[in-house]
Amino acid sequence: MEKLTVIKVGGKIVEEEASLNDLLQRFSKIEGRKALVHGGGRSATALATRLGIESKMVDGRRVTDEETLKVVTMVYAGLVNKNIVARLQALNVNALGLTGADLNYMRSDKRPVKTVDYGFVGDVKEVNSDLLADLIQRGVVPVLAPLTHDKKGNLLNTNADTIASEAAKALAKSFEVTLVYCFEKKGVLMDAENEDSVIKEINHSQFEEYVAKGIIKEGMIPKLENSFAAIDSGVKQVVITKADLLGESTGTVIKK
Amino acid sequence: MEKLTVIKVGGKIVEEEASLNDLLQRFSKIEGRKALVHGGGRSATALATRLGIESKMVDGRRVTDEETLKVVTMVYAGLVNKNIVARLQALNVNALGLTGADLNYMRSDKRPVKTVDYGFVGDVKEVNSDLLADLIQRGVVPVLAPLTHDKKGNLLNTNADTIASEAAKALAKSFEVTLVYCFEKKGVLMDAENEDSVIKEINHSQFEEYVAKGIIKEGMIPKLENSFAAIDSGVKQVVITKADLLGESTGTVIKK
Repeated sequence: MEKLTVIKVGGKIVEEEASLNDLLQRFSKIEGRKALVHGGGRSATALATRLGIESKMVDGRRVTDEETLKVVTMVYAGLVNKNIVARLQALNVNALGLTGADLNYMRSDKRPVKTVDYGFVGDVKEVNSDLLADLIQRGVVPVLAPLTHDKKGNLLNTNADTIASEAAKALAKSFEVTLVYCFEKKGVLMDAENEDSVIKEINHSQFEEYVAKGIIKEGMIPKLENSFAAIDSGVKQVVITKADLLGESTGTVIKK
Repeated sequence: MEKLTVIKVGGKIVEEEASLNDLLQRFSKIEGRKALVHGGGRSATALATRLGIESKMVDGRRVTDEETLKVVTMVYAGLVNKNIVARLQALNVNALGLTGADLNYMRSDKRPVKTVDYGFVGDVKEVNSDLLADLIQRGVVPVLAPLTHDKKGNLLNTNADTIASEAAKALAKSFEVTLVYCFEKKGVLMDAENEDSVIKEINHSQFEEYVAKGIIKEGMIPKLENSFAAIDSGVKQVVITKADLLGESTGTVIKK
């Protein structure tokens, strides 16, 4: 099986000129098959503000009413996605920007209203990766925006981490997938105050041990749980690292 | 050779709910391979106005400064394109939204400054249609936004009529292409005041005759010249019709 690297980067990195250029340079040099998943929340908030639309967040998730859906569609699928695609083409990477509606590659259901009505937010239900896998095998590099669709004509705002793990899991049928999450730290740290205390490699039993000892805590727990879930669904390994170290042998490698 | 229908619709049709729904219903029923090219100028102007950006037009072409380029990227590649894609998926059409940067399918040069500086506007230089043709043969329906790129990292605003004719000409290597331009009249008219005077079919010598007699004049002349240029480059036929008659045997058929 061919190797495939799926890299997820947050909005902050792709929305600033210098960090975006550095990221795309690093990304273009990664060997073998690859895909990029991006956010864009800050630009969406900035555009919403300019248009006089209030950005409402609950537990870090954007409440997406009809006007906000238009904003995120313009920013994620238009501004951010196509800028990345054009820049990657300049670096001879044959990029193809996609939402879940394109090629019907990722379908979701509008999140049911429980205590919070998130509006046009999607929970992923189905990934059709056959055509995508074929394109990747032919040298195409998908650039995935954090939007899916419900196959009833509506786009749905979808968490970029989820897009990355769902795409990685589906593509694991056709590739040996490494899923890389770039975030603000160098990796999972033994000591949150010390950037040089990166845990090089962690498996599920070590994870449970570190959680029991209080070394791994708070926001890091769901991140790692999601990583193990991806591995349990066929992804070969997950790497948690910092975007400006992408392509270097750093970060935390999460394995079965 | 398989048949392919490339349909170009203006912004007005795709920007109004009722006409968009009617168009997509009609489009979904067209048999065989197909592609859709759309505009979006009115929405771009509306967004620019809300953002306090002045829309400057010269000879019907939008002067595209850096801020305006962001607006058209958001509107054409984001809002309009992805809405069409999501709605087509709901109609079981496997749509894929593209700018010229995606798959590097259409490269252009920034228009040189002569009397007018149009800014980030592209003149098409190269169409790479092999992968696109292959996707079409596999049932994918491209939805083309009026943006190209210069392969140096910049997106460029590009006339939708030009996107349609350049795509049609390149795809004529792989398909028997019919290029359909939807506009506000039922076709080329013998009498501009009479909507029922549609010329059913016209070839190049008849065109010259009608121009000499003053029957075909003004804006219709370059439209037909472009149609004959497409035919001279391998497109089988060009049809000029009205969007709300799409799929019916109406309009003017332009043949060699």
